[in-house]
Amino acid sequence: MVFADLNSDLGESFGAYKIGEDDQIIPLVSSVNIACGWHAGDPLVMQKAVALAKQYGVSIGAHPGFPDLMGFGRRTMNATPAEVKAYIQYQVGALDAFCRAAGVKLHHVKPHGAMYNMAGADIRLARAVAEAVAEIDDSLILLALSGSEMIRAADEIGLPSASEVFADRAYEEDGSLRARSQPDAVIRDEAECAARVLRMVTEGKVTAVTGRDIDIRADSICVHGDSPEALLFVRRIRETLKNGGVEIKPF
Amino acid sequence: MVFADLNSDLGESFGAYKIGEDDQIIPLVSSVNIACGWHAGDPLVMQKAVALAKQYGVSIGAHPGFPDLMGFGRRTMNATPAEVKAYIQYQVGALDAFCRAAGVKLHHVKPHGAMYNMAGADIRLARAVAEAVAEIDDSLILLALSGSEMIRAADEIGLPSASEVFADRAYEEDGSLRARSQPDAVIRDEAECAARVLRMVTEGKVTAVTGRDIDIRADSICVHGDSPEALLFVRRIRETLKNGGVEIKPF
Amino acid sequence: MVFADLNSDLGESFGAYKIGEDDQIIPLVSSVNIACGWHAGDPLVMQKAVALAKQYGVSIGAHPGFPDLMGFGRRTMNATPAEVKAYIQYQVGALDAFCRAAGVKLHHVKPHGAMYNMAGADIRLARAVAEAVAEIDDSLILLALSGSEMIRAADEIGLPSASEVFADRAYEEDGSLRARSQPDAVIRDEAECAARVLRMVTEGKVTAVTGRDIDIRADSICVHGDSPEALLFVRRIRETLKNGGVEIKPF
Amino acid sequence: MVFADLNSDLGESFGAYKIGEDDQIIPLVSSVNIACGWHAGDPLVMQKAVALAKQYGVSIGAHPGFPDLMGFGRRTMNATPAEVKAYIQYQVGALDAFCRAAGVKLHHVKPHGAMYNMAGADIRLARAVAEAVAEIDDSLILLALSGSEMIRAADEIGLPSASEVFADRAYEEDGSLRARSQPDAVIRDEAECAARVLRMVTEGKVTAVTGRDIDIRADSICVHGDSPEALLFVRRIRETLKNGGVEIKPF
Repeated sequence: MVFADLNSDLGESFGAYKIGEDDQIIPLVSSVNIACGWHAGDPLVMQKAVALAKQYGVSIGAHPGFPDLMGFGRRTMNATPAEVKAYIQYQVGALDAFCRAAGVKLHHVKPHGAMYNMAGADIRLARAVAEAVAEIDDSLILLALSGSEMIRAADEIGLPSASEVFADRAYEEDGSLRARSQPDAVIRDEAECAARVLRMVTEGKVTAVTGRDIDIRADSICVHGDSPEALLFVRRIRETLKNGGVEIKPF
Repeated sequence: MVFADLNSDLGESFGAYKIGEDDQIIPLVSSVNIACGWHAGDPLVMQKAVALAKQYGVSIGAHPGFPDLMGFGRRTMNATPAEVKAYIQYQVGALDAFCRAAGVKLHHVKPHGAMYNMAGADIRLARAVAEAVAEIDDSLILLALSGSEMIRAADEIGLPSASEVFADRAYEEDGSLRARSQPDAVIRDEAECAARVLRMVTEGKVTAVTGRDIDIRADSICVHGDSPEALLFVRRIRETLKNGGVEIKPF
Repeated sequence: MVFADLNSDLGESFGAYKIGEDDQIIPLVSSVNIACGWHAGDPLVMQKAVALAKQYGVSIGAHPGFPDLMGFGRRTMNATPAEVKAYIQYQVGALDAFCRAAGVKLHHVKPHGAMYNMAGADIRLARAVAEAVAEIDDSLILLALSGSEMIRAADEIGLPSASEVFADRAYEEDGSLRARSQPDAVIRDEAECAARVLRMVTEGKVTAVTGRDIDIRADSICVHGDSPEALLFVRRIRETLKNGGVEIKPF
Repeated sequence: MVFADLNSDLGESFGAYKIGEDDQIIPLVSSVNIACGWHAGDPLVMQKAVALAKQYGVSIGAHPGFPDLMGFGRRTMNATPAEVKAYIQYQVGALDAFCRAAGVKLHHVKPHGAMYNMAGADIRLARAVAEAVAEIDDSLILLALSGSEMIRAADEIGLPSASEVFADRAYEEDGSLRARSQPDAVIRDEAECAARVLRMVTEGKVTAVTGRDIDIRADSICVHGDSPEALLFVRRIRETLKNGGVEIKPF
């Protein structure tokens, strides 16, 4: 039997502001990454997201980001490794409090946005992320871009990790994501996306932009649920995986 | 043998901004209450304060406050009990992450500023505070104003608590603190302060502003260390307590 | 000819977060109150709201609030008059910069949420608000609850003011708004609301909850545009006013 | 007669947090750059700094920065030119409100920290800065690193500018500042610093790290006043300039 995880970023509302169809997406995925109040989310939103995840038996991850609510954590900031490490510990601890209060166990950590991208490419930041998580609880799993420096940093210190792939993104030959500035960075054809996901999961292969097949590890597929179209797309991927003999469950 | 705890609020620096002589005060007290990043403190400051407390074997408490850095958490905000509960869990969890990373156990929780005052007088907020702490870990101790609604709320649900007194503040006959708006709210004479502390600890009595003696429970004495004079005052209280046969150690 | 102004609070989006149908509501009103980045709004949102208001020839007001994005400025904070004054000047100046850059004149100032309610009832805060505005530009108009302390404070120093009424709120006999905690605080019948507005504007009268008619000054009617139903309601009020011979234009 | 301006960054306190000896430095300089509440400063601090500058007849500049209080605005953020432009207009407007309330005219704008460095090197950001200022008031002066892209951008649109030099920093042959990561980036010898300043002002020359003399325009010298040593250093520079026949006054 082949397994794969579907994960989604949520708990991104803040005060009077609402983002994301948490109620709709949680029943469709096996893992959720909950924002921790810095780039998005607030304590009441976190509490509610944990309760929803518990209700549907979905694995809970912390989704820490940069202190940039105005930029939704998407802007690079030249924070030092020591800062990134402390920022992650702060936010993971904050989310874990809601897990403990709800009687569920925190399962994984996935950095958000610019922090995810920067730590995926810079081994010093990647080590800061892995150490931050391991020092709190070395049974927590680091969820990070497949083939990234974060996966390498987790391996170095024996921290469990899970490799994330994207259904609708093109890959370079070296396994990195095609930059969004390129016109062919995003794959629009949904059938193609679903087929690529199935192949990544079952064969560990994906066709790079150059046309060559490359190896890729796909423990978890990141999906979005912030629009009716996105929800339809998630359902299609679920169906394709199931028809292809893949069981969807947490990594 | 009689025991008493000396506690101090610290870890209040933020980014480039420095408040408090943490290095000087920690060796003089038995417990510290570390700000959690909302009214004061940031992740690097919290990390460092935990390391200092560990080094000197001082008990560590979380010191959560309102989301009001500009007002240092001293301004009342009409937050709901549900908000206060979630705010406390968020901040306690954040500080606990640094404790876990440092391999020390979080010992207690003491709300800060306006949150401390409001929850001390309003049983609905007091219950929110006690539940917030108990849901995370019911072996954590709630440190709160002696005789306040927070002590009552902790008792109601069986959460351990410790009663805090102030060396330099006048008390009303009902055991509440004399309002700071009154000219005699603060006791300026240091010898008198030290003598009052000793009596509160050893006899459980203090003379109210009316001249009558009242009962007061004094598990912990709050001291400040934000100036050379404050540090001298702490040393004087330590000496008076020791000479009076009181051992200073965590509650 | 009788005149009345329709005003709406907008520019309340923040970063990735969207609140309010600014594009839909601006063509329907004669004045807008734009959030200034503290309780809601950010510089890009403010810039865009000013551009929309300019495009439709709508009068622009600053809508300053408390530093409480998480609570959307709706929670009372015991800020001092000096703090409230400085907070208003900061935010009015910030919005005015976008007006100057767009080549339009800032027309009025209306405090938001808890600041509006507190300054409406407390003459010390009301004077702080009026002075804040007058010191920047004494031709700016203070838009405030009809009959409130803010109107009084503006009168005291000769600052122009405009009296705001609410279409869907019940009034006490003393002219204050019926507290929202009361079941009859909000009037649900739209026809009744529209009729009340017309009478307030043309006769200067409204029926209080006690059944007695009271005098009320209605220079401007506050309307909301954050849902399709709200937009329909605004259209109904516009129609009722026009049919009643009232011209809708800025105060 | 030769003229030069001495400028200093201040108004950097925030709430209960204090940074900078504003009272000490203002009497020693001819221009001040006041933080605008994002990387440092708050409305009450800004108000007080404006009052002090008015009292001593010192020219007032706005000192806008990135929304990063935790990093004091010193961390690069990949904000877009549109964001930087709006951020500057917001903050300049906010400070200008306190100037208007105090009856003084805002004189100049100098971006802070990472924003200063980034806009000094990137013409797109530099143009955003220059346009932001010119759209508010094209008689405002842009104070920026001598020879930087900001000076060029101001020249392009006819915005007045003033060229800033640093007393204690080494220069590359191309006129840029020696990177702080280099051991010889900062000149420790105070006499040498003072002599270099005098030569920059009177001859328009400075010796680069390579030993070659380069041309440099020095309208204003940036000095710091955050320690007793810094204040002594400012006094020494003042004396050296005066003895060298230079009059200290605003650009």
